[in-house]
Amino acid sequence: KTRYEIAVVHGDGIGPEVCEAGLRAIKAALPDEGKLAFREYPAGARLWQETGVSFPEETFNACRDADAIFHGAAGLPEVTAPDGTEPGLDFGLQLRFRLDLYANIRPIKLHPGVTSALRHFEPGEIDYVILRENTEGFYAARGGGNVVRGEIASDTSIITRKGTERIVRKAFELARSRNGAPRDGRKRVTCCDKANVLRSYAFFRRVAREVAEDYPDVELDFALIDAMTVHLVKRPDFYDVIVTENMFGDIISDLGAATVGGMGMSPTAEVGDDNGFFQAAHGSAPDIAGRGIANPIGTILSGGLMLTWLGERHRDNALIDAGARIDRAVGKVIRDPGLLPGDLGGTATSVAITDAVCEALAG
Amino acid sequence: KTRYEIAVVHGDGIGPEVCEAGLRAIKAALPDEGKLAFREYPAGARLWQETGVSFPEETFNACRDADAIFHGAAGLPEVTAPDGTEPGLDFGLQLRFRLDLYANIRPIKLHPGVTSALRHFEPGEIDYVILRENTEGFYAARGGGNVVRGEIASDTSIITRKGTERIVRKAFELARSRNGAPRDGRKRVTCCDKANVLRSYAFFRRVAREVAEDYPDVELDFALIDAMTVHLVKRPDFYDVIVTENMFGDIISDLGAATVGGMGMSPTAEVGDDNGFFQAAHGSAPDIAGRGIANPIGTILSGGLMLTWLGERHRDNALIDAGARIDRAVGKVIRDPGLLPGDLGGTATSVAITDAVCEALAG
Ligand SMILES: CC(C)[C@H](C(=O)O)[C@@H](O)C(=O)O
Ligand SMILES: CC(C)[C@H](C(=O)O)[C@@H](O)C(=O)O
Repeated sequence: KTRYEIAVVHGDGIGPEVCEAGLRAIKAALPDEGKLAFREYPAGARLWQETGVSFPEETFNACRDADAIFHGAAGLPEVTAPDGTEPGLDFGLQLRFRLDLYANIRPIKLHPGVTSALRHFEPGEIDYVILRENTEGFYAARGGGNVVRGEIASDTSIITRKGTERIVRKAFELARSRNGAPRDGRKRVTCCDKANVLRSYAFFRRVAREVAEDYPDVELDFALIDAMTVHLVKRPDFYDVIVTENMFGDIISDLGAATVGGMGMSPTAEVGDDNGFFQAAHGSAPDIAGRGIANPIGTILSGGLMLTWLGERHRDNALIDAGARIDRAVGKVIRDPGLLPGDLGGTATSVAITDAVCEALAG
Repeated sequence: KTRYEIAVVHGDGIGPEVCEAGLRAIKAALPDEGKLAFREYPAGARLWQETGVSFPEETFNACRDADAIFHGAAGLPEVTAPDGTEPGLDFGLQLRFRLDLYANIRPIKLHPGVTSALRHFEPGEIDYVILRENTEGFYAARGGGNVVRGEIASDTSIITRKGTERIVRKAFELARSRNGAPRDGRKRVTCCDKANVLRSYAFFRRVAREVAEDYPDVELDFALIDAMTVHLVKRPDFYDVIVTENMFGDIISDLGAATVGGMGMSPTAEVGDDNGFFQAAHGSAPDIAGRGIANPIGTILSGGLMLTWLGERHRDNALIDAGARIDRAVGKVIRDPGLLPGDLGGTATSVAITDAVCEALAG
């Protein structure tokens, strides 16, 4: 393949600003101009307000058929449907289920120049990846739970062998391709669950143990979700790849992000066997939208993840290289205190940061 | 009432050591010798190994009839029943359900002398309480989930109006009696849920909003569980009282503990309308059992919570005072670097720390 179609959705709030920043970095990282073709499609809360539709079928079709999907940020908390849900979230949530994007990949890395909220950890000492199962678990009940007579509410989680096997397998493959945990260089997959209380988590753990037999070169480790939160604060350097159920993944991904500069520094990849969806971990932050001060790094790093994923998928080294260069460029730029964004205590504008990243990529 | 019966269970691992430490502190805090009567009862993993019973009915009856229950720590991970569960955990888990101990109270306080894992927070700046609903939510499915054909596993959460109302009401009452959040002194109840994805959590939030109407003097705030983990790392000083569902409470209580010195510094109270159960938040740490180096502070502080709870319940000011004095004594002792336990980076023994606390209480 010589040309990849990227479906681009700007979204709401700061979505358009960070999306543009990400696209600029991607283009700067990829010398070959014609390799990527970007096409924009509408979705989101604003669109819902204007048209009554948050996620048009044409946008879905384009996303499904594209080689990758790149997104700014979605949702406006004050824009709610009659049933109380946020139509702005439809885009991201529906993509997961409709395109079977079963792996939600959240690299948690403390970049040079970023001061961790954790007192005892410096750049280089936090560098792990959370693999969140993205299609089942407690999210399988999404919106489908019951409320009886206004007295009792209930939701049901579903964990399948197939869903667990594929995410755990991906975790082991990822551990093989990484350098191991910062503390000891050991390749390690940590299965995070609540096997001591809930059967569905005990089942997740059992399947993880079975899959691990195919990867004797990678250490298998277990952590209960409550202890996991303590470990991520006390010894994040112990972790390499963490694999977990959907809701626990939602929780610890954000906790991890908080230890490496916050949501603004956190990229996400949501991938299945046929599609990949890339966006920053943060929301649409409508309070600062349009002011030019949003931190674009999460989206820029997501662009890097997209290039790496496309490159690995199509055995295209130029793309893999470009992805790695984005990661390094961010590391260089953020080291300059004059280029720190507002959420890291600095005053640099989105454009200034993006300019610097593009310059580092060109140089 | 002039004499209170305390049912004491030592438990497994470091349980007996920390339990003794806690009892010594309680006795030192309470000048009136005859006010408390302690009686010991067996339960735990070791007992299960020896007798095949982890939680004898006599122990249950004694706990039910006592004025309060004081516990060391339970469970030995390698002691498992044929179905894979840990019999050592029966005692604590069954008490919750059988005595309807619906409020799991976890004060998260950074004591003087303790260095927080969070870079930007000092003693005095973290002081909030987590109220975990302790009888329903996802724990309602405990052990009762389904596994079908080894292919699909599922668990169901139950949230009731009654269960939610009583825990939320307790949260507001607690907020009224406290000094407010460290940052702004505002009395604030934060409802932590995942209302944007699961109906049962949306229901929890709706009930919280209804109960809040009776407490116009206390601010009601909401946080989604994923965002909550970020907030507890980035702005713990904003929080006063946090109320949440059982499993989310399990998760954020331990996260909170990690920011104030760890599980060894964290006391717990589990109370219902008729009974109260007090123990440290940590487990039985069999790896360090018998070496005299366990941190006794969590258990000592739990003793303080027990005295305060008994005092408030029976309008007995001597008990309330004694509870407060334990908290202050810990603050004094731990300030001395020579009295830091191993888990806080020091080398003081359990006995040395307990001696110092008792001395501070006597002085
Ligand atoms: C917006 C929300 C429904 C979503 C989730 O909970 O999955 C978000 O928190 C995320 O992590 O992508
Ligand atoms: C031992 C375990 C089942 C228990 C729980 O999950 O509730 C513990 O973590 C706690 O917080 O008391």
